Amino acid sequence: MTTFNIEDHPHRRLNPLTNDWILVSPHRAKRPWQGQVEKPAVAERPAYDPTCYLCAGNERVGGHKNPDYKGTFVFTNDFSALLTDTPDGGRDEGSLFQAKSESGICKVICFSENHALTVPEMEVEDIRGVVDVWCREFEELGSNNMINYVQIFENKGSIMGCSNPHPHGQIWSSSSVPAEPAKESVTQKAYFEKNGRTLLGDYLAAELESKERLVAENEHFVALVPYWAVWPFEGMIISKRAVQNILQLTDDERTGLADIYKQLTVKYDNLFETSFAYSAGLHQAPTDGQDYPEWHLHMHFYPPLLRSASVKKFMVGYEMLGTPQRDITAEQAARRLRELSDIHYTTIKQ
Amino acid sequence: MTTFNIEDHPHRRLNPLTNDWILVSPHRAKRPWQGQVEKPAVAERPAYDPTCYLCAGNERVGGHKNPDYKGTFVFTNDFSALLTDTPDGGRDEGSLFQAKSESGICKVICFSENHALTVPEMEVEDIRGVVDVWCREFEELGSNNMINYVQIFENKGSIMGCSNPHPHGQIWSSSSVPAEPAKESVTQKAYFEKNGRTLLGDYLAAELESKERLVAENEHFVALVPYWAVWPFEGMIISKRAVQNILQLTDDERTGLADIYKQLTVKYDNLFETSFAYSAGLHQAPTDGQDYPEWHLHMHFYPPLLRSASVKKFMVGYEMLGTPQRDITAEQAARRLRELSDIHYTTIKQ
Ligand SMILES: O=P(O)(O)O[C@H]1O[C@H](CO)[C@@H](O)[C@H](O)[C@H]1O
Ligand SMILES: O=P(O)(O)O[C@H]1O[C@H](CO)[C@@H](O)[C@H](O)[C@H]1O
Repeated sequence: MTTFNIEDHPHRRLNPLTNDWILVSPHRAKRPWQGQVEKPAVAERPAYDPTCYLCAGNERVGGHKNPDYKGTFVFTNDFSALLTDTPDGGRDEGSLFQAKSESGICKVICFSENHALTVPEMEVEDIRGVVDVWCREFEELGSNNMINYVQIFENKGSIMGCSNPHPHGQIWSSSSVPAEPAKESVTQKAYFEKNGRTLLGDYLAAELESKERLVAENEHFVALVPYWAVWPFEGMIISKRAVQNILQLTDDERTGLADIYKQLTVKYDNLFETSFAYSAGLHQAPTDGQDYPEWHLHMHFYPPLLRSASVKKFMVGYEMLGTPQRDITAEQAARRLRELSDIHYTTIKQ
Repeated sequence: MTTFNIEDHPHRRLNPLTNDWILVSPHRAKRPWQGQVEKPAVAERPAYDPTCYLCAGNERVGGHKNPDYKGTFVFTNDFSALLTDTPDGGRDEGSLFQAKSESGICKVICFSENHALTVPEMEVEDIRGVVDVWCREFEELGSNNMINYVQIFENKGSIMGCSNPHPHGQIWSSSSVPAEPAKESVTQKAYFEKNGRTLLGDYLAAELESKERLVAENEHFVALVPYWAVWPFEGMIISKRAVQNILQLTDDERTGLADIYKQLTVKYDNLFETSFAYSAGLHQAPTDGQDYPEWHLHMHFYPPLLRSASVKKFMVGYEMLGTPQRDITAEQAARRLRELSDIHYTTIKQ
């Protein structure tokens, strides 16, 4: 009888941050594809686009005019999903019809005045400028009494619903803690109370020892494919020092975050020699004024591409109704990313 | 001061089946769209396609030849994500690296020999043939000792990862209960133990009284947009009689399920006059031989289109990292679907 082997046999893995199981089918990577093919991301863009509502000096909807900024530029989302003046209230007719009013502030952060750039093509010191804006906004929004959670994220690429290719990210801050960080709060707290150390601190120590799933590293941060990855090339950036939020990072660590953000996204672009789409975002402690020693700052990367610049993984059918499922293992994905150059492919080719 | 109004103000709603919250931003429906535009589904297809591996008489990968079937045809998936001969085993090095081997059987069900059809274009009696196959497969797979859950589903449309337009669905059956039905088991059980009635029975009674979210109805089933819908035009079919699984349906009820499946999908196609993509699937009690009086058979529909045949809702960024978010309310979506004709738009135009 053959014995169970995680690299060959179908199995489930547990995500200890959310307590969700995922299904891994390593034997299935050879499946042919006759389904939807994505248009590859168009690489050539001008440094300034007169029709782009994020470029410096241009007009946005509603008549707002962008300043002639250099570097970063922050403004309140013209189509905020959350508003500051939502009246309190709700509906609670028994347990089956529960609704609660929700307030918040949504912002857009332009990463650079250069319309043609993306994070992996920016200089570390310019990405550091983005990290500084995150810190400033986290501090300002987090100290607002109405705001109890600040979600910083980036959607990159039209296949990830990004409605404008100008390099930018978003912040949606809200009066309640969103579903995902709320789950991570529960699991991290339980772990911390039991072990006196953060869940991600212990996890990172084990990953640094095994090396199997590591992708990139610097003095302060590690980028890896988590053991419980759902997306084919899912990534996670974890701080070596357990900090609750970005405001607790030292000056050096801020630069380290900018550097690892670039390192991981350069590898992503190099994988299929394309501008690699993803949704990415920071998870940090709530901003309700309480102390969260169990919270360990990290950043998730959810990229959909699977086999090439044009074939993505669809999270549909079984994934929506049953359990998320992946074909290649986390170890295989990490190995491929790790072995790629850390110099952006467009630079090498020049 | 304005008072809170669920039709106008941002709010959260609770899904009592999963205990997850979702965010509703009704004011945001007017947002312009400069992002990805989908190719509309190609409507014209031949009744037989010599290159289709699901058409009757054609060859599949691995040299299997489809019989010259009429109506439905079932076979084991040539690229099954789950296999019957997975050796037992796992890995459990502390709580952070948990893996368990998983076994199962994956099948494909062709709904018709006619390559050009889709469910909303099929006759009710032919869809009833599909329901009968579901029952047969559920019985056979469910009585296999290795199988404890049978997930029946359909991915329709290339934007939902469907790799072949031939009308077909899938069944992935597994040794463990997948994540979504596992959550629904917990919530339904808690509700049943407290109230002595099924959660969905009480929910359906309230919906039938309010009428706000109803879309279609027959003697045995109701189609509605659930109060906690995440996708813009998400739908749910609920049986009027609380049954644990499709084997408990009467002959009349089986036809009723076929009829409501057609009614809902005809409305979907009529909404944007296009072949409306979705992932849909049945949720039923586990097949581990135990009795599940709390389980109430239902079918979920997760369609991605938002504003037109070419603009879909992206569940990215905030949705992946925070909380699922929708723009139009469930009530608005239900009203639009309800008011549509129940005759397929291609028939009217002929
Ligand atoms: O089995 P198919 O149609 O080839 O594949 C499709 O459905 C599966 C089950 O929902 C998904 O895991 C795949 O990502 C999707 O492309
Ligand atoms: O805000 P954008 O870029 O217009 O919109 C994009 O990101 C949002 C937040 O992740 C999503 O809700 C939208 O579905 C997506 O298209």
